[in-house]
Amino acid sequence: MVHKKWSLVVAAFFIVSAGSAQVYKDSRAPVEQRVKDLLGRMTLEEKIGQMSMNSLKGSLNSTIAYGVCESPFVTIQEIAALSIKAKKYAREQTRLGIPPIQIGECLHGQLASGATIFPQAIAQGSSWNPALIKQMGSVIAYEASSSGVDQALSPLFDLIRDPRFGRVEECYAEDPYLVGRLGAAFVTGMQGDATQSITGIGKNKVMCTAKHFAAYSIPVAGINLAPAFIGERELRSMFLPPFRDAVQKANIYSVMPSYNEMDGVPAHANRFLLEQVLRREWGFKGYVFSDYEGLKMLYTFQHIAKGAVDAAPMALNAGVDLEAPSADVYSKLIELVKTGKVKEAQIDTAVARILTVKFKAGLFEKPLVDTLQLKKRVHTPAHVALSQQIAEESIILLKNDKQLLPLHINTLKSLAVVGPNANQVQYGDYSSTRDNRSGTTVLDGIKQLAGNKVRINYAKGCSLSGQDTSGFAEAVTAAKNSDAVVVVLGTTSVVFSGIGWNGHAPESEPKDPFTCGEGYDVTDINPQGVQRQLLQAIYKTGKPVILVLVHGRPWSIAWEKEHIPAILETWYPGEKGGAAVANILFGNVNPSGRLNVSIPQSVGHIPVFYNHVSSGRGFYHNPGSPGKPGQDYVFSSTEPLFPFGFGLSYTSFQYSNMQVSATSFGKNEQVQVSVNVTNSGKTEGKEVVQMYLGNKVNTVTTPVMALKGFDKITLKPGETKTVRFTIKPEDIAIWNTDMQLVTEPGTFDVMIARSADDVVLKKTLEYK
Amino acid sequence: MVHKKWSLVVAAFFIVSAGSAQVYKDSRAPVEQRVKDLLGRMTLEEKIGQMSMNSLKGSLNSTIAYGVCESPFVTIQEIAALSIKAKKYAREQTRLGIPPIQIGECLHGQLASGATIFPQAIAQGSSWNPALIKQMGSVIAYEASSSGVDQALSPLFDLIRDPRFGRVEECYAEDPYLVGRLGAAFVTGMQGDATQSITGIGKNKVMCTAKHFAAYSIPVAGINLAPAFIGERELRSMFLPPFRDAVQKANIYSVMPSYNEMDGVPAHANRFLLEQVLRREWGFKGYVFSDYEGLKMLYTFQHIAKGAVDAAPMALNAGVDLEAPSADVYSKLIELVKTGKVKEAQIDTAVARILTVKFKAGLFEKPLVDTLQLKKRVHTPAHVALSQQIAEESIILLKNDKQLLPLHINTLKSLAVVGPNANQVQYGDYSSTRDNRSGTTVLDGIKQLAGNKVRINYAKGCSLSGQDTSGFAEAVTAAKNSDAVVVVLGTTSVVFSGIGWNGHAPESEPKDPFTCGEGYDVTDINPQGVQRQLLQAIYKTGKPVILVLVHGRPWSIAWEKEHIPAILETWYPGEKGGAAVANILFGNVNPSGRLNVSIPQSVGHIPVFYNHVSSGRGFYHNPGSPGKPGQDYVFSSTEPLFPFGFGLSYTSFQYSNMQVSATSFGKNEQVQVSVNVTNSGKTEGKEVVQMYLGNKVNTVTTPVMALKGFDKITLKPGETKTVRFTIKPEDIAIWNTDMQLVTEPGTFDVMIARSADDVVLKKTLEYK
Repeated sequence: MVHKKWSLVVAAFFIVSAGSAQVYKDSRAPVEQRVKDLLGRMTLEEKIGQMSMNSLKGSLNSTIAYGVCESPFVTIQEIAALSIKAKKYAREQTRLGIPPIQIGECLHGQLASGATIFPQAIAQGSSWNPALIKQMGSVIAYEASSSGVDQALSPLFDLIRDPRFGRVEECYAEDPYLVGRLGAAFVTGMQGDATQSITGIGKNKVMCTAKHFAAYSIPVAGINLAPAFIGERELRSMFLPPFRDAVQKANIYSVMPSYNEMDGVPAHANRFLLEQVLRREWGFKGYVFSDYEGLKMLYTFQHIAKGAVDAAPMALNAGVDLEAPSADVYSKLIELVKTGKVKEAQIDTAVARILTVKFKAGLFEKPLVDTLQLKKRVHTPAHVALSQQIAEESIILLKNDKQLLPLHINTLKSLAVVGPNANQVQYGDYSSTRDNRSGTTVLDGIKQLAGNKVRINYAKGCSLSGQDTSGFAEAVTAAKNSDAVVVVLGTTSVVFSGIGWNGHAPESEPKDPFTCGEGYDVTDINPQGVQRQLLQAIYKTGKPVILVLVHGRPWSIAWEKEHIPAILETWYPGEKGGAAVANILFGNVNPSGRLNVSIPQSVGHIPVFYNHVSSGRGFYHNPGSPGKPGQDYVFSSTEPLFPFGFGLSYTSFQYSNMQVSATSFGKNEQVQVSVNVTNSGKTEGKEVVQMYLGNKVNTVTTPVMALKGFDKITLKPGETKTVRFTIKPEDIAIWNTDMQLVTEPGTFDVMIARSADDVVLKKTLEYK
Repeated sequence: MVHKKWSLVVAAFFIVSAGSAQVYKDSRAPVEQRVKDLLGRMTLEEKIGQMSMNSLKGSLNSTIAYGVCESPFVTIQEIAALSIKAKKYAREQTRLGIPPIQIGECLHGQLASGATIFPQAIAQGSSWNPALIKQMGSVIAYEASSSGVDQALSPLFDLIRDPRFGRVEECYAEDPYLVGRLGAAFVTGMQGDATQSITGIGKNKVMCTAKHFAAYSIPVAGINLAPAFIGERELRSMFLPPFRDAVQKANIYSVMPSYNEMDGVPAHANRFLLEQVLRREWGFKGYVFSDYEGLKMLYTFQHIAKGAVDAAPMALNAGVDLEAPSADVYSKLIELVKTGKVKEAQIDTAVARILTVKFKAGLFEKPLVDTLQLKKRVHTPAHVALSQQIAEESIILLKNDKQLLPLHINTLKSLAVVGPNANQVQYGDYSSTRDNRSGTTVLDGIKQLAGNKVRINYAKGCSLSGQDTSGFAEAVTAAKNSDAVVVVLGTTSVVFSGIGWNGHAPESEPKDPFTCGEGYDVTDINPQGVQRQLLQAIYKTGKPVILVLVHGRPWSIAWEKEHIPAILETWYPGEKGGAAVANILFGNVNPSGRLNVSIPQSVGHIPVFYNHVSSGRGFYHNPGSPGKPGQDYVFSSTEPLFPFGFGLSYTSFQYSNMQVSATSFGKNEQVQVSVNVTNSGKTEGKEVVQMYLGNKVNTVTTPVMALKGFDKITLKPGETKTVRFTIKPEDIAIWNTDMQLVTEPGTFDVMIARSADDVVLKKTLEYK
């Protein structure tokens, strides 16, 4: 209260005194006044400069200040040095001294050599641990801010729906609630808690960008940048809520439109999305940052504009405030304003948004980075340990017949480690591996953990996508000479540049061509090349086989599910992934990852997602339907191979005593749900307790079930904990036929589940 | 003019005299008066009766008259006998004597034993010959009306987009213009020309039903009845135009909503579709006929209603006039009206629509069918010959290396005919094969044509979907003993009941389980079972191989395209398909079918359609994009295996002298396009000259090209014909960001093409 009063006094003071004094340079002045003052001093050219991006290097000789500057994909040291020069230059050598916002990619660690590389986003998603992701966000911000990064072009709030699409590895999950929880956790870790970040971004913190707004992850046929087929209700019900969480729960500073189009309108020209939904409905106060060349694509790719002059007002009217990576399109605004075709007031609105963010982020006052501190701040043992911890919490045990796992270090005499990803760290896209080959491979991890006690027989066997089987014999021999075999298969994703499509060629092409990541889409989600044949050759030896998947997208592993006794899904587990895998293989860590995506039986089953409407898996799928039960395709069911939420443990958990605080509730009321979970096994373990709501009759169709709560808990053997959830009316709200968000009266199920296919306890609740 | 005046006089007469006289029984009275009069006499129960279906048998003991009666799937003779009884009963034994509309399925011939079976709809589509399809419609109506059928639940105006979906065989094509042209031709053949059918349905004519309204053919993951993911603009631009043609160009009498939902709203509850678009925007004057159990599904399947009482007003408000197959839901309307929950005026509106159709169709005056005439009218040699002619025009020559085809009957000594569909007629779904096993198999056709001159060696080789390869040896021997081999592979579709999902079990299960048709969806579009292995075994003999595909859905025949020298796509070519294939194989008929659908490289490429927007096949696909050209997937391009519009001939055609009557045009103006086409080969042949428009910059994205004209012409060797097309502003109209249909100024391409991938001549045109 006192603070508020003081603000008013300050505001009044500046309203009175604002004249020739450079109010915008006074950090005590209210942001609104600083923006107004600065805007009033700017030329049209300077305004357009603020609406554009430049590289840190490019900023050093520009006569006008740019809105944002991009960190090059080099070492952290080099970035820091450039940052100092560029920011100094902007403050001292440009007329008004407006510092740029320094941009960096930070999807799973800063995209810079030397930064800690965390597990890829899809692996973060399978941790189901928002607290850990928040902690990671905090560490990434700490590292990235060390080299001057002010804003991350991360994270993705897109939903995984089509495993053909190479960027599914950059997404958290298929479920909007899980994506919203994890994404918001990442953002609050990076930016600071939402309540704080309303007023400003603190020290060691970095602003975030929610992308790709919206429906980017469902391009037709899985082809990067292709249109999304979606209606407004599905968009609002499934694809927008994570972004709404980013804005309303995490107070994110920036939003990036999607490259692709929905229903004929590219996101960079979509006023409904950027103005109506984002700003009017959600109250977004940050700025909209174009994806790279997103504005040019309006005429080069999507052909809704004849050229840059056409595209500029289109994007501006839609609500794009800043163009990246250069002002190819927005540079035309100067002439358009001068000839009266665009009103300068529109420019002022966009520039004001960018300046507001700059003031809130403290850019005018922020000290330049201290390069002497870099070593102490980046890739510290604690940070690397956190990367490994996240890997350990994200690895999913998909199958474990006859308790083949964990392996016993004291009785196992020999172990074969086989496969193209066994001795190769796969960092995942949007990571830099230049000067950072320090990651731990699965082979390394196993050797480090068990090499003294267990003889390790390694053979690569084959490459990731080639057809050469000449290495099979060596691998089979290794298997035959061992008590058990770990087979590590997977994909490899575009690294360093992180961007496959725009001509930034990776510095050195690896032996295996990229098979995942941005711009690397596929038409088959079986293991590529001869990997399955290698596995089958090993399987034929009769030795116990443990399959470890190191890859960026779900694979249709029907054969593997049927034949291989133990399967670990690791996604891309970060630089210490190999150590994490070893800890799980030998039981030092009890696996606790849960599937964040439904695994399809085959590419022909796509899309497969658990939160479909009741007709979504066909007629026979529905209980009580006549005919061939569960068999909606001629030769198969419509079920996933492994369901969303699924994951095994080395211990077992029992659920009991589900309680619901009321049998009905109404507007502004809440219901408390609790359930007891007991570790009924002999090992300490973590369980992800999941609450789904569903089976409600609404006036439009709604998902049969939707995740609305989860909690990852640790239980010692014999220990019982009570897990509590809260149900609010908004949790069962729908977009009705008038496209209004309402909660309709009716009865629905509250389900406590181990996975979407394994509901353990259920109660009915009524909304009046 | 005279006629109009007379109508006015009659109308005036009836307004004056309408009192106790039974105006509705007076055929001279205007339809409006008759409806009003009859409605005024009906009880609520009688009204609800009119809004329901019954079977012809069921009608014989009902106390109230039903709106429509279904023909059972028995012989035409039995149907005719039942029709006489039921209609007599309705006229004489029910209080008001309202005759039912007798319903029949007529997709490719009446669904009744004894009727002529034409090629399946997908084969009709590849004929690209609307005149022939109109003639077929006329014949089907002639046959069907012989057994009393008044209305056909045909044809489909759905677009082929997903070959996994079993009902693609019931659709004409992937292109809305082609579907509209062929569908309207079918309807005018069945109903009579549109101008005539405004006032009434003539003798030997049958009313039609446009289904499934709308977007039924794009269920998620190809699963029958599952939701369509689509936005309003895509719906209006692609999926609705064929239905608009049905209403506005063919004056169709009835429309059937789709089973599935779009964006949360099942079609049977979709007021936007049935009221806003269909009636208000398009001026539809007929009645809306529910799909079977479509209303029940609102609560049993889609769960937007709690039960029948809930569903009844929902469907009524949406605009469904009649419930099929029984009044499970609409029977509730009686109580709902009595308790004031539904207004009787709403009931009256629906009943008036049904009665209007009955009067227009002349049902009150129509004589009962004459069973003595049946033999003369049904399955006549002329009708069967027409079925064969359509097959001959629909079969597509996909490949013909070194002019392997046509085979030369005088030099060929022996021919192997091999494969599971070689000696099996595949009629396609929605056909009855009871008492109708008279169809010609490919083996029969070849024997009948060439059996006297060429030794025919037949072997089945394998079944359609089993894994048994024990028949390979015999097939390989047959191949080795022959000069060439015809291999006939394919699918088999649900027949007789025509309906796979609703419990009507087929009378006798054939040896091969159904692999296509309604309710028979798949996740892989490679040849099923060991069919490809059989083909590969034959291929290895080194003999010239001709592959003949007899199936209901596109197959991904990448291996076949690479290795097999000659390929014929026949779809399901009707009862004389085998004779048609033989005529083409031996050159009696020059193939002239053209692909009505893009053939995907694999199931993982789905959906593949030619009329995508410019970003629809990815970034690299676009001319001028940097990077790996044309390769938008890691291991393949995004191109189809065979493009839309493609088909070879035994002769060759040259295009020249493209003329456009103007370089620009405006509102209410037209442009004439002409091109000369010459048969430059030595054989008479038919060419399908195709005109596409595209490459236009609009304010929303639009297809790169869209078919807007085609003409199938016959040319003697050396002959040249001039083909003419007209371009109207509506041909390049778009649904803009305000969802208004407008033609925006700009430049676009006029393309004369052999297929969507083979533009021969191109000019630019401007719309001002």
